[in-house]
Amino acid sequence: MASNGQAEKVAEVEENVGDNGDTVTPWDVQSKSDKGIDYDKLIERFGCQRISDDLIQRIEKVIGQPVHPLLKRGIFFSHRDLEFILAQKEAGKPFYLYTGRGPSSESMHLGHLIPFVFTKWLQDAFDVPLVIQLTDDEKFLWKNLTIKETMKLAKENAKDIIACGFDLNKTFIFSNFRYIGQSPEFYQNIQLVAKNVTFNQAKGCFGFTESDSIGKIHFPSIEAAPSFSSSFPFIFGEDSNIPCLIPCAIDQDPFFRMTRDVAPRVGLHKPALIHSVFFPALQGAQSKMSASDETSAIFLTDTPEQIRTKITKYAFSGGQSTAEAQREKGANCEIDVTYQYLRFFYDDDEKLQEIKKVCTSAYL
Amino acid sequence: MASNGQAEKVAEVEENVGDNGDTVTPWDVQSKSDKGIDYDKLIERFGCQRISDDLIQRIEKVIGQPVHPLLKRGIFFSHRDLEFILAQKEAGKPFYLYTGRGPSSESMHLGHLIPFVFTKWLQDAFDVPLVIQLTDDEKFLWKNLTIKETMKLAKENAKDIIACGFDLNKTFIFSNFRYIGQSPEFYQNIQLVAKNVTFNQAKGCFGFTESDSIGKIHFPSIEAAPSFSSSFPFIFGEDSNIPCLIPCAIDQDPFFRMTRDVAPRVGLHKPALIHSVFFPALQGAQSKMSASDETSAIFLTDTPEQIRTKITKYAFSGGQSTAEAQREKGANCEIDVTYQYLRFFYDDDEKLQEIKKVCTSAYL
Repeated sequence: MASNGQAEKVAEVEENVGDNGDTVTPWDVQSKSDKGIDYDKLIERFGCQRISDDLIQRIEKVIGQPVHPLLKRGIFFSHRDLEFILAQKEAGKPFYLYTGRGPSSESMHLGHLIPFVFTKWLQDAFDVPLVIQLTDDEKFLWKNLTIKETMKLAKENAKDIIACGFDLNKTFIFSNFRYIGQSPEFYQNIQLVAKNVTFNQAKGCFGFTESDSIGKIHFPSIEAAPSFSSSFPFIFGEDSNIPCLIPCAIDQDPFFRMTRDVAPRVGLHKPALIHSVFFPALQGAQSKMSASDETSAIFLTDTPEQIRTKITKYAFSGGQSTAEAQREKGANCEIDVTYQYLRFFYDDDEKLQEIKKVCTSAYL
Repeated sequence: MASNGQAEKVAEVEENVGDNGDTVTPWDVQSKSDKGIDYDKLIERFGCQRISDDLIQRIEKVIGQPVHPLLKRGIFFSHRDLEFILAQKEAGKPFYLYTGRGPSSESMHLGHLIPFVFTKWLQDAFDVPLVIQLTDDEKFLWKNLTIKETMKLAKENAKDIIACGFDLNKTFIFSNFRYIGQSPEFYQNIQLVAKNVTFNQAKGCFGFTESDSIGKIHFPSIEAAPSFSSSFPFIFGEDSNIPCLIPCAIDQDPFFRMTRDVAPRVGLHKPALIHSVFFPALQGAQSKMSASDETSAIFLTDTPEQIRTKITKYAFSGGQSTAEAQREKGANCEIDVTYQYLRFFYDDDEKLQEIKKVCTSAYL
């Protein structure tokens, strides 16, 4: 398999906290710096690769169109084996997209949209099948929620996700609590992964402790399994081995670092990845938006009036250390949350440049 | 729930090896004594109860017939909450039977038959539904076998089990690799258990280490889940909570000690248990028969000639320390394997007594 050459960091050691105090796990993202996560250090620690301008040009050549602003602007900034996926496409060979969501609140917030907006674009640009996993079981294992409550959240979130406009004929969206009970092949792949990961390895990737439930400790194999096309025999046929590309925020990387360690040992393709940075909370880039903190996020169900209030009241803006410096130098767009939100969602490059110019000018 | 009063030993401490050096886990049974496992000590360590003569009489009263020789002769010797099950029956309330098998070899051996022979009798005597779990996933996780190989073993073993003659209208036999992919409710109950057991607790019950796979560590929740009737909505209805009785060899008790700890915390009935001693290997009572050691076991596929050879060549017999003592005192039937096999399988009490008399007499 072409994708198996690269050395992975599937550690026997604790690596979910970096030297610089940045913590990045699927359940906890924290930085001790007010600039937020140091992504260069994170890339090095995780062992993935920054997306270069050359790679972006190669993508544009393969798909025959410009890349999405989320990629152009470096919001999707890191990858594993993206070249392999491009080579598949160039050779006319199939691949598929896999992304997902842990449904922890009835309404999704803006940050949750990023992978789906980008995945929708990838699906259109490459014309490939897509599977979307809703990890209601994960939320059940981690939160104080019943199974029925998490299944309801998955259903609610599915509506928001469907609204992103995926290709109806090429998209399968599923809840684990429903689909695992409908597909022997999916369960078999879950156990295929679970057999090949030790508690020590899971501890190294995810920071589990001996007080964690055996459900949590086993869960990574459930997020891993959709990386293998044979989990979806009705889409890809039985015993298929079609590679996949996973667009996700970089906090999900540990799941797939683990998966990539297992895949060659069981004769399957390693999943390729394309990672985004975190969408900043209203309070600033130190942490990612959290659905469990109402004031940290703009929800898809918020009214325009509520959004206006949240931006005015909570959005961290400016960034100079004194009001005077702010007036003199203007805002620092690198950390100004309102500007950052535009950078994520406002497609018009020219206008965005203008806005940046205005914001970073002295207020004179 | 009437069955929740009794204190359980779900330990945070290593308890799979006793003071006397007896090791009893679902995957390892060893004794340092040539008399084999000390069951009195095991009962005390596990926190279950010996079946008294009074309890046997009560069973006979409830079912209106004598109990099976396996119970009469103390082969099924220990229990948890059997009184509660009898009270259910007396009150005309439902319960069901749950037993199972880990399919590790194509042919089952005599020892594997014990729980099924006894369960068949229980089903007839109480006229209740029965579910039989084939843990092909367990064998996949523990052995050097592929998923397909373990599924094939499950199918082969199912034939031997079906041949025991269960009530076709009241028996559901399933392989995990098939049924988990067909029943969302079963998977949901698996995760319900998995959420409520920590790695530390699993370590205490089963002796797991940090080098064990996350599949193994999670597996106990899969053997636990059929204890809850809602895992089988097509038999018991949705959201049902019908108690069950589990006939099994006592090495399986840790699974259900764990399940009984979880059940009241999730509002479900604790499973009741009835435990058998281990069927001795041909070499004697120090260990249980093992399908992986050809000379330790008589297989259901062995020809009469093969069985004769095995008994003659490998069966530990006599038990006196010298040939002379053997001639003088006769065999010690407590450890004579041939006699012990008759005790497990030969129904005629009178003839068995005669045989014992002959064997224990001096050869004069």
